[in-house]
Amino acid sequence: MPVADIARLADHVGQLVAIKGWVHHLRSSGKVRFMVVRDGTGLVQGVLVKGQLPEADFAAFDRLTIESSLTLKGKVRAEARAPGGYELEVTRVEPLNLAQDYPISPKEHGVAFLMDHRHLWLRSPRQQAILRVRDEVCRACRDFFHDRGFILVDTPILTPTACEGTTSLFETDYLDRGKAYLSQSGQLYLEAAAMALGRVYCFGPTFRAEKSKTRRHLTEFWMVEAEAAFYTLEDVMELAEGLVSYVVSQVLARHRRELETLERDLAPLEAVVPPFPRISYGEAIARLQEMGNDMAWGEDFGGDEETVISQAFDRPVMVHRYPRSCKAFYMEADPEAPELALCVDMLAPEGYGEIIGGSQRVADLETLLARLEEHHLPREPLEWYLDLRRFGSVPHSGFGLGIERLVAWLCGLKHVREAIPFPRLLDRLYP
Amino acid sequence: MPVADIARLADHVGQLVAIKGWVHHLRSSGKVRFMVVRDGTGLVQGVLVKGQLPEADFAAFDRLTIESSLTLKGKVRAEARAPGGYELEVTRVEPLNLAQDYPISPKEHGVAFLMDHRHLWLRSPRQQAILRVRDEVCRACRDFFHDRGFILVDTPILTPTACEGTTSLFETDYLDRGKAYLSQSGQLYLEAAAMALGRVYCFGPTFRAEKSKTRRHLTEFWMVEAEAAFYTLEDVMELAEGLVSYVVSQVLARHRRELETLERDLAPLEAVVPPFPRISYGEAIARLQEMGNDMAWGEDFGGDEETVISQAFDRPVMVHRYPRSCKAFYMEADPEAPELALCVDMLAPEGYGEIIGGSQRVADLETLLARLEEHHLPREPLEWYLDLRRFGSVPHSGFGLGIERLVAWLCGLKHVREAIPFPRLLDRLYP
Repeated sequence: MPVADIARLADHVGQLVAIKGWVHHLRSSGKVRFMVVRDGTGLVQGVLVKGQLPEADFAAFDRLTIESSLTLKGKVRAEARAPGGYELEVTRVEPLNLAQDYPISPKEHGVAFLMDHRHLWLRSPRQQAILRVRDEVCRACRDFFHDRGFILVDTPILTPTACEGTTSLFETDYLDRGKAYLSQSGQLYLEAAAMALGRVYCFGPTFRAEKSKTRRHLTEFWMVEAEAAFYTLEDVMELAEGLVSYVVSQVLARHRRELETLERDLAPLEAVVPPFPRISYGEAIARLQEMGNDMAWGEDFGGDEETVISQAFDRPVMVHRYPRSCKAFYMEADPEAPELALCVDMLAPEGYGEIIGGSQRVADLETLLARLEEHHLPREPLEWYLDLRRFGSVPHSGFGLGIERLVAWLCGLKHVREAIPFPRLLDRLYP
Repeated sequence: MPVADIARLADHVGQLVAIKGWVHHLRSSGKVRFMVVRDGTGLVQGVLVKGQLPEADFAAFDRLTIESSLTLKGKVRAEARAPGGYELEVTRVEPLNLAQDYPISPKEHGVAFLMDHRHLWLRSPRQQAILRVRDEVCRACRDFFHDRGFILVDTPILTPTACEGTTSLFETDYLDRGKAYLSQSGQLYLEAAAMALGRVYCFGPTFRAEKSKTRRHLTEFWMVEAEAAFYTLEDVMELAEGLVSYVVSQVLARHRRELETLERDLAPLEAVVPPFPRISYGEAIARLQEMGNDMAWGEDFGGDEETVISQAFDRPVMVHRYPRSCKAFYMEADPEAPELALCVDMLAPEGYGEIIGGSQRVADLETLLARLEEHHLPREPLEWYLDLRRFGSVPHSGFGLGIERLVAWLCGLKHVREAIPFPRLLDRLYP
């Protein structure tokens, strides 16, 4: 008898199959017993009719508890009213492990309780749906870059120095060689790799020992970052827009069922097609001021400002050319307005804030040296980075995309903590 | 005029194109100048004939240095003798940045020197070839799991406890919540995810603060790990064998040119087709003893023993059922010989040692509790892991594959340090 994935029952209609999984729901009605089983690929209802299976197997139903593991055997039947479209006429029930009293019930639980039980909470249909969307997002990002000739270059996590200053860094003793810091971005290393391979990307965990407690922050989160030689700010804006619209289209095409489970309104996602609106920082400030926000030119936006700016658009908006004074040392100045950086932030709609930050990088050695001084950054640990300007420097640009914020937006989550399997937060390192 | 990737010149034969890249090689011969240019996608020779391009452009050749960046324009011509199969009849030379005296020359350099210049060394044809093979290996692993319904579940890097004891861990202060450790394996978390999604995998960096200095060890390395509910040791052996043979076949199919650059003997790779030989630990010990090695039953193999064992086979060998005493706490005992673990190590041919370690995991709560005591592991930080045995425990198995060792083997490298873009070693944290 074949062991079937529940997601593949369509291939087995009329056949006897075995399903290996866990009890999701139990219900009795007269001489009939109903059991919804999950196996990680889907849910199916098994129907037990007294007399149609061994007496002992029918009796076994009464001992079963939620999340007990078992093998269920039976004949697959198409059933339009059933969740998933198929039912099982059960012929054998083989319990494996009877679960103790399962702590998570369909009733409401507090967030702290659910987070303490994250290892079990993942089993809920909603969390499974998020994990599947996340899997697709990661895959779509990789496919997008691969199809455009970008080579994956894994950048180091343990680094001898900080990319954007030393605040909010996790540090560790590196054997007998002093301190190492957990990377906040692979960008500087990607720049080196772009000079070797032209177009490159990295995809890995990044870390911020930030004491802020917001619904958009994790201390450990995943980023995909791209860097390309000879790319300008214009090129990366086009690339970023292409990436985000491709990921959204893939999730819409392949994960309707998950988005349904999440009760996600699809209309805002279906609107996400290029071109995305582009406004300058100056325009954004003017809009904010018009709406009564007293933010002055030169300040960076907070979450509230991002929400207000993005609300004016039905798709992600790209805000470009921020003042250099509020951005990182490595950003190229706009030749037409040197107080501005050739940079872009992409803000997601529906209040999800910044999902992408990118820029053209300083190409000239002397300019970069001056920037290090301005930003009080030590030169010696960055000598290798300066080398990139000594040996065949070229204009180049790149961006980073935060995976959890993207997943949170696509799934319509209130907090990024549900967008990663085992979140790490200010007050959360367990399980 | 289109900007063309060198790898795509076949699409532009007879056309005028622009190539943006770096000078790889310069040569003069009478009134003709030759310039090999690289752009990250490949190498092409440009031919400059006096009188066929502006005088100033012809003269610019003499100012160029190795690794200077430039735009080269010209007509694409098929030329069988040229590296790559095409040449450029150069019509314009537009230097961008003249490189200072480039430190890496075709002559031999010491390893320390090359490692200090890793950011530049990546530009060499050999290092580029390795990075491309690595990209393919990562992609092939992901495709393999995706095609089999495994869902990517990123496991945390910052963990409150150690999976296999607390030695060789990097530690960091986790905000105000005590110590956190950098993960050495995502396995325990994957087990939780497998109980939710059935078949899962993770792919990320792992860390070992090991003071050993061998050609097989890095302090930061990448692992792909798979875990599946209801899988037995037999199932994971089949999965591991399928994965490795698939990855090898993809690299062979798509990266002949890179393997040629690396002067890799293809015959040993072409032999890597299933089934892989399987021998028990007991058989392996007997073989070793026959060959004069005095290793006693109960000891784990070192690099030397792995090399000797693997030399008897023309493809990876799977050594299964090691004594439990030399393996981790979470491995299921063999019901037919309880002193043995249901585990497997896959040893690569040609002396590359262990590339995969896997096992069936303990499914029973009481057994697992006893194991924690035996191994003097604290129970409290693993309560969540114990929960997996309280709520619908099932037989399950998984394995981890070390990416750098696999890449080192496929590329025929002497040391794993070349198999990762920016290696971290006992004495190396820079660049």
